[in-house]
Amino acid sequence: MIERIAIFGTGLLGTSVGLALRASGYRGAITGWNRSPEGAQTALKMGAIDSIATDALQAARDSQVVLLAVPIYATLDWMEKLSGVLGSEHLVTDVGSTKGQISEAASRLFNSPERAAFLPGHPMAGKERGSAALADAALFRGTVWLFTDDPNAQRSPHSAALVKGWREWAGAMGAKTLDLEPARHDELVGWVSHLPQFVATALSAVLEEEVGDAPELKDVGGRALREMTRLGASPYSMWRDIALTNTEAVQTALLALEQRLAHLRENLRTPELRDEFEQANRFRGE
Amino acid sequence: MIERIAIFGTGLLGTSVGLALRASGYRGAITGWNRSPEGAQTALKMGAIDSIATDALQAARDSQVVLLAVPIYATLDWMEKLSGVLGSEHLVTDVGSTKGQISEAASRLFNSPERAAFLPGHPMAGKERGSAALADAALFRGTVWLFTDDPNAQRSPHSAALVKGWREWAGAMGAKTLDLEPARHDELVGWVSHLPQFVATALSAVLEEEVGDAPELKDVGGRALREMTRLGASPYSMWRDIALTNTEAVQTALLALEQRLAHLRENLRTPELRDEFEQANRFRGE
Repeated sequence: MIERIAIFGTGLLGTSVGLALRASGYRGAITGWNRSPEGAQTALKMGAIDSIATDALQAARDSQVVLLAVPIYATLDWMEKLSGVLGSEHLVTDVGSTKGQISEAASRLFNSPERAAFLPGHPMAGKERGSAALADAALFRGTVWLFTDDPNAQRSPHSAALVKGWREWAGAMGAKTLDLEPARHDELVGWVSHLPQFVATALSAVLEEEVGDAPELKDVGGRALREMTRLGASPYSMWRDIALTNTEAVQTALLALEQRLAHLRENLRTPELRDEFEQANRFRGE
Repeated sequence: MIERIAIFGTGLLGTSVGLALRASGYRGAITGWNRSPEGAQTALKMGAIDSIATDALQAARDSQVVLLAVPIYATLDWMEKLSGVLGSEHLVTDVGSTKGQISEAASRLFNSPERAAFLPGHPMAGKERGSAALADAALFRGTVWLFTDDPNAQRSPHSAALVKGWREWAGAMGAKTLDLEPARHDELVGWVSHLPQFVATALSAVLEEEVGDAPELKDVGGRALREMTRLGASPYSMWRDIALTNTEAVQTALLALEQRLAHLRENLRTPELRDEFEQANRFRGE
């Protein structure tokens, strides 16, 4: 029953959703809006969207589902703007990596019977570089699409049906959907997603400083080094908003890792090192 | 001219060398010795070796090249034993991950005209789990095989030719060879190989402690988490010797990373975060 979708932000995720919808059999309209209209040309050429919207609010009103695929603060800005112009015949959803502030705004600005529905979402998929050109119809296959919906949302039957419909499309795109409370979401991704990113950033930064000018370096680093620093290529522009909206969880995780590294450093020559390796082995299911 | 090779240690690396030699056109004999003879059966079945040696010293004497593919301290033990029974018609080489102590022992016990040659080697290839069953003829393709040979080695023409021959086989197996001084080797791999390993171990250990029992965890973690913790599966038995023989370099690298993580943690909400991401981006060639 979803036949008109607007994607706000035609970067890696927005464009990949468009491609994945098409690959999953979606036959309705997909319009794309992007801060720079030229930025939407790639998505159009790839077939991820079939038109470029110039008037974002009009495009939102003309659609049933608006997908916000922009950084967190831009998402929050759009939520303010859209809540005033959309009604119970609309669903707004997002792909943001932190859900505390977005879920709070969703309950405050949406999800009453006369207003649009808002379904906070977070597909656990991405690449270290974000651009439409890297978009992939299979990006969500085998991944988890998290939702942090408000169990007390009061929705019209129409917008409730759109929520159900969007969850089904997430499944059709190949993702398993999983529901979490917003606070639990932010704590969990602080450990399993944000901590690995900030570790890769710190590791890449320290290696650039210490051995970045060693001519042998590029040759010597093998698969392990490539993997451990791949996320070092991630852009500040995306992670700034994550650092600002999940600060406490990320600080807790970073401090725990710092302490673990210090413990390891102090025990390189003691049997305690065995315990650390065995604990790590357990995480990997050894 | 190399026609008889003995591989001591038929784990992942030893077995992979046997397979890679065969895949590269080596037609001579390969005998395998392993601490537990049953451990060599897999290598034999895979065709990495064509016989299992029961008398290691006799097998060494009967070969032209002995490849030590065992942990560092076992390598040092074999060097002591072999230096007394081999002569200028032999080459001993190894695959150990630290080269300071091994290169020192090589100069002390080998590399005089009447003794066997010893070529300290370190192929930058491996897997997080070590066993013959995971061996791979293509393990060395596109990698670098480091050597830390003594420029003052005094070798017989015969053993010098064996050294040259073994370097050529490393190339034939698909690796690019690169020569480093032992101290520079240990410092460099401390940064680009040992640091990533200990970070993955600490990250896996802390995640096991904090979220190891979260039922959602396995689903939520995506490619980034898998990559950043893959090395968490690495065995203590191998890394203990590396920690013991490259302690100072690893401590220096760990401390630098701890300080970088703390700096990042203290700047999650400041513009300094941008500098860290840009420094990391440079390492990845952005």
